[in-house]
Amino acid sequence: MTRNVELRVRKLDSTAADFKQQLTRLLAFEAETDDAIESAVARILADVKARGDAAVLEYTNKFDRIPNGATSMAAFDLGQDELQAALAALPAAQRAALQTAADRIRVFHERQKQELNGFTYTEPDGTVLGQRVTPLDRVGIYVPGGKAAYPSSVLMNAIPARVAGVKDIVMVVPTPDGVKNQMVLAAAAIAGVTRVITIGGAQAVAALAYGTEIIPAVDKIVGPGNAYVAAAKRRVFGTVGIDMIAGPSEILVLCDGTTDPDWVAMDLFSQAEHDELAQAILLCPDADYIAQVEASIHKLLPTMPRKDTITTSMTDRGALIKVRDMEEACEIANDIAAEHLEISAAEPQQWADRIRHAGAMFLGRFSSESLGDYCCGPNHVLPTSRTARFSSPLGVYDFQKRSSVLFVSEAGAQTLGKVAAELAYGEGLQAHARSAELRIQEKS
Amino acid sequence: MTRNVELRVRKLDSTAADFKQQLTRLLAFEAETDDAIESAVARILADVKARGDAAVLEYTNKFDRIPNGATSMAAFDLGQDELQAALAALPAAQRAALQTAADRIRVFHERQKQELNGFTYTEPDGTVLGQRVTPLDRVGIYVPGGKAAYPSSVLMNAIPARVAGVKDIVMVVPTPDGVKNQMVLAAAAIAGVTRVITIGGAQAVAALAYGTEIIPAVDKIVGPGNAYVAAAKRRVFGTVGIDMIAGPSEILVLCDGTTDPDWVAMDLFSQAEHDELAQAILLCPDADYIAQVEASIHKLLPTMPRKDTITTSMTDRGALIKVRDMEEACEIANDIAAEHLEISAAEPQQWADRIRHAGAMFLGRFSSESLGDYCCGPNHVLPTSRTARFSSPLGVYDFQKRSSVLFVSEAGAQTLGKVAAELAYGEGLQAHARSAELRIQEKS
Repeated sequence: MTRNVELRVRKLDSTAADFKQQLTRLLAFEAETDDAIESAVARILADVKARGDAAVLEYTNKFDRIPNGATSMAAFDLGQDELQAALAALPAAQRAALQTAADRIRVFHERQKQELNGFTYTEPDGTVLGQRVTPLDRVGIYVPGGKAAYPSSVLMNAIPARVAGVKDIVMVVPTPDGVKNQMVLAAAAIAGVTRVITIGGAQAVAALAYGTEIIPAVDKIVGPGNAYVAAAKRRVFGTVGIDMIAGPSEILVLCDGTTDPDWVAMDLFSQAEHDELAQAILLCPDADYIAQVEASIHKLLPTMPRKDTITTSMTDRGALIKVRDMEEACEIANDIAAEHLEISAAEPQQWADRIRHAGAMFLGRFSSESLGDYCCGPNHVLPTSRTARFSSPLGVYDFQKRSSVLFVSEAGAQTLGKVAAELAYGEGLQAHARSAELRIQEKS
Repeated sequence: MTRNVELRVRKLDSTAADFKQQLTRLLAFEAETDDAIESAVARILADVKARGDAAVLEYTNKFDRIPNGATSMAAFDLGQDELQAALAALPAAQRAALQTAADRIRVFHERQKQELNGFTYTEPDGTVLGQRVTPLDRVGIYVPGGKAAYPSSVLMNAIPARVAGVKDIVMVVPTPDGVKNQMVLAAAAIAGVTRVITIGGAQAVAALAYGTEIIPAVDKIVGPGNAYVAAAKRRVFGTVGIDMIAGPSEILVLCDGTTDPDWVAMDLFSQAEHDELAQAILLCPDADYIAQVEASIHKLLPTMPRKDTITTSMTDRGALIKVRDMEEACEIANDIAAEHLEISAAEPQQWADRIRHAGAMFLGRFSSESLGDYCCGPNHVLPTSRTARFSSPLGVYDFQKRSSVLFVSEAGAQTLGKVAAELAYGEGLQAHARSAELRIQEKS
């Protein structure tokens, strides 16, 4: 996939007549639906639903190339002792860093929980109305295996569930060729995952959604995965809840030209190194500064182990955009509705106040996205592909749901019943009307 | 569809050996995906995306049988004066009932808004972390036309958006044969809908999602619709947000045998009259009382204008279930996770405390579901088909989204940078690590 080409960053100017079209083309991204993947996934889901563990075992042995082939699902069901052992065996600095990150993530998400308590109020006639907030019973967390196995994602997905009060947190993580990622298992131990099963792909999604002999059906499945996992999640949506289907990661840097250009170049790289479809864009009113960032990009690229991925991503989907002023930069940022928005400026708050849509805003030049990715506390699972216009970071609220509570007093039923009956007759729903009227005690 | 048969209600007993299987069969509902509908919808979406208003105009003239055929989209674009005229022309009692309902819905949803304010906290080193809550810019509300045109649904969908602070609320409602529902238009006036366009079907969903020459693209589409509308909403999800795809409506009544059996029978009818797939179930520990409710059902049925629908729905999907005791009733209720749960009992709170999953709980015998459907205040758009395990009533929160806000101080970047770099190197993401390290000022 990675082409060995020279990095060429697209440079745009907001004063160009066709700038709006250029921007639209730059941002265009549509996840392709692949018919072969769709039909394979439909088959796997139906098979696991029908045959349970036997099907999951077969698919796992085959797709994950388990050495010698496991003979029962018990082989994939890790105990807490194995998770704790993985944690104990980590190098001390890594263990401490994971623990610090987990603690900070927990503190931030506790604030989210405090915010949502439900409410109740009583009306003069004794009618009580309210809203109750309760945790989900059981959730599944999908963690990719192989190259993209990120312990930080385990923390970011499991800790909000834990804080919400979810009792059972079942994590699935494939182990291609039978190789376990010890840092991922250690993160599961720290995050309070209650069970880890080393399966993956559509078969793992099916097992979580429908349940098998050894895997209990969950209420919601969260976490990133490949195209098979994404297709499977879409298909089981409704039977269980799912989080957003994430598109490629994006960073948008708004810079007033006062930040070290090396810092901005490296921030763009930190997004571009994720994958070839990742998108890194700079908006800046200062053409000279943009030239400096471009120079930094070419200077720093050779030092990057993932320079091939960065080159492809920056060339295909990156851009350095000269804008009229920071006000216009904010307007464009609202159109882009970026997953990560850095406002790398001397007085960032004045620009932040103009932003309506962004997954996460990083204010000031010391707030690099990478700090937020790992350990500031806010979640790194964020809305991509302009969905920040209508959706939110993953949070405690994704592991809670609300129920309305209505207690209508006898007196309340008299007045409310007349209103309801009037409207129900207007809609032609006579049983609704009669049900309200039966509660009305005619005083003679 | 409606068959003219005798109403026979299924009676189950929780002590039966195969009760759990019987219950599973009773609850089983899977929305069928119809390939013909799917491909028709895909074609309509692509056509509206490509040709805009011209395509919407053609489909609307054809599918809604507009008399003489409209020659431009302007014909479907109603002004506020037409909405106000519809409101003024309503019978006084109906207008007053709509207004009372709207006021009460607004009060309840204002409480939801008060609950979610976002937060911010400052750490000792000056780092500030927080969460900002903002409204969506523009939403679309789909309102069905024809038989199932419910003004109460206009209130329930539009008022939460209005309370959230959404500036543009675009309502679409088809007018089959060109007939406008005046009560629906009046409800739009009361609810603060900013624009009404009399189009419907997949073409209306496409227009809202992609935008056309006269219809601005929205950020989210909510509201119920037929199979074409549901398929279209699923397909545009990602481009815009959507609410849940609702299944048939359900009521579950838990009764301790102390409520007038006529009241319970009518409450079951009020669900069953919606459509033939609606589900009405009673759980009660008292066999004699169940027999009384059954007698009430047969006594009251002939008085119901929608008796054919009720007969089919109650016979195919209804049940009167004898349970061991109210404790068991609560356990079964948690499995069912009903959209509407009535606890029609002398001391309802003790049972409500045991309920973990329900869209809305109606406590005490005066709290009939129909009061909640119209005018108590809580929303009547509720999670169906067991999705109350993981989802919530429609609310103000569906028209808001959150953004994380991170301001890392220079001092914060020193300590956080080391943690982030450690973890980033562990994940093989060197640009992430370098981006954090560049902010660390080595003190010599």
